[in-house]
Amino acid sequence: MQIIGIDIGGTKCAVGVLRDGAVVEVDRFPTQDYTATFARFRQAVAALKPGPDVVFGISCGGPLDAARGVILCPPNLPGWVDIPICRVFTEIFGGRAFLMNDANASALAEWHFGAGKGCRHMVFLTAGTGMGAGLILNGRLYEGASGDAGEVGHLRLRPDGPLGFGKHGSFEGFCSGGGIARLALAMGWPQTEVTLKDLAEAATRGDPLARQVLDTAGERLGEALALLMDTLNPERIVLGGYYPRCSELLLPAMNRALAAEALPSARAACQILPAVLGESIGSNAAVAVALHALDTLPERVAEGGAKE
Amino acid sequence: MQIIGIDIGGTKCAVGVLRDGAVVEVDRFPTQDYTATFARFRQAVAALKPGPDVVFGISCGGPLDAARGVILCPPNLPGWVDIPICRVFTEIFGGRAFLMNDANASALAEWHFGAGKGCRHMVFLTAGTGMGAGLILNGRLYEGASGDAGEVGHLRLRPDGPLGFGKHGSFEGFCSGGGIARLALAMGWPQTEVTLKDLAEAATRGDPLARQVLDTAGERLGEALALLMDTLNPERIVLGGYYPRCSELLLPAMNRALAAEALPSARAACQILPAVLGESIGSNAAVAVALHALDTLPERVAEGGAKE
Repeated sequence: MQIIGIDIGGTKCAVGVLRDGAVVEVDRFPTQDYTATFARFRQAVAALKPGPDVVFGISCGGPLDAARGVILCPPNLPGWVDIPICRVFTEIFGGRAFLMNDANASALAEWHFGAGKGCRHMVFLTAGTGMGAGLILNGRLYEGASGDAGEVGHLRLRPDGPLGFGKHGSFEGFCSGGGIARLALAMGWPQTEVTLKDLAEAATRGDPLARQVLDTAGERLGEALALLMDTLNPERIVLGGYYPRCSELLLPAMNRALAAEALPSARAACQILPAVLGESIGSNAAVAVALHALDTLPERVAEGGAKE
Repeated sequence: MQIIGIDIGGTKCAVGVLRDGAVVEVDRFPTQDYTATFARFRQAVAALKPGPDVVFGISCGGPLDAARGVILCPPNLPGWVDIPICRVFTEIFGGRAFLMNDANASALAEWHFGAGKGCRHMVFLTAGTGMGAGLILNGRLYEGASGDAGEVGHLRLRPDGPLGFGKHGSFEGFCSGGGIARLALAMGWPQTEVTLKDLAEAATRGDPLARQVLDTAGERLGEALALLMDTLNPERIVLGGYYPRCSELLLPAMNRALAAEALPSARAACQILPAVLGESIGSNAAVAVALHALDTLPERVAEGGAKE
């Protein structure tokens, strides 16, 4: 049985295939309109010569209807409206196809192939443009009653603060990439525009305001991790997005907040690790979607939720 | 196979037996020293004439060593030190015995037999002297990496506030029974001592300060439920302890806070219900411990954690 991953991102796409327990990325290209992008996917998949028992895992930004296998109208994929993407692949290549949002798929990717390998309880934080979590609990993805589990960007950390996820003072407001930039402006950054990359570079050069901004963000990150540790007592928290590139600038304040806020036994039981899959997280995530679907298939069939 | 539940509480004990899918409580009595209490348990169990395949579920306050089946030294059971309670029962009656802390056992009880029946994702809040949660996720108890999952009493809701779980401004500080009493004193309650019962009676009579105290506690309760909804997206949140007796006094402020703080889709997916087992939660919890052990036995054997 061949397992092929299709990653549909806002700026780039990728195709991966599972070989000997690891993901081999066979293509990566800039996302275009649906027709051009699909043509490229088709070509890459055809080159893998899939048999009739092929299983496709498809990872894509929301909103989507995972049970029906339909991409609805993701804001970062203009023109991709109501695409029955699972059916599109299976009508051409046969086999089965499964669709999942990219945040949960990325959590599965780090769990199967990255920093979460071998653990049973893991929180993955996206820490990019937005701030979301994918939860692996008792050795499987936990999605919640309506698929909203892990919407931790919405958690309130302070009565007021930068806007994120529609809420001033939220975790996404303080700690997403864009949130940290807005925090810098609110703290008096002299230019009218700034990115997290600018801030990290300035802090590395010793700029005191940049350091203060990243200290504040690191402290809020620690407070949010404490909420997750006390509630979920995970073995590992894996931070993706910007974190692997600037963890050192955030760590001192983050650790201070954790020491003050998290239950010591929960803190002691939890490793905090940067994500390791980097640029290849998309193809790994897509393959992981297929693995998850196969793992949970008996149950999905019982619930009437399987997609062929 | 007979399933017998042994509930060991700080003030009372109970024995229950599973019959036709429901728990029949066959004894309930005030807790005494270990020797007298165990003699009463032994008598009640002997009357049930357990066969050699009997399964005991034992629910008790922590700290305990569940894997070894030993009660360590619970603060509410003075003199009960290092009691190998599972072995004590199986040496006399044969069969198997399993031990669990009462917070998780109560969550299992409301899930199997009470307000959580039939749902897949449930948070149970103890809401008594302390404030803790038992989590049922993906249709099973979730305990976390070191058994600390659900220590939500430790979550920070405000930079400062009443002391609870060693932290000023925590969920337990604002919303446990004792926490609400301390909140009243901090808000200027005229007597030097007060209980939640006094406050509820005064609020029902229309006392403005009592109403203000319960409004504040209700608002913090709503804020904490919002953190749980956004993180865990449960189908149901079941509130035990004092909540079934004074939910009406807390609901208006709680719902205002939820409307302001929780993600609307997570809020819409979640029912908030009072616990229904009342005084019989102990015997139901103990039986539920045995059911949980039987459900998860293959896995526990694989992990080397089964207790005979």
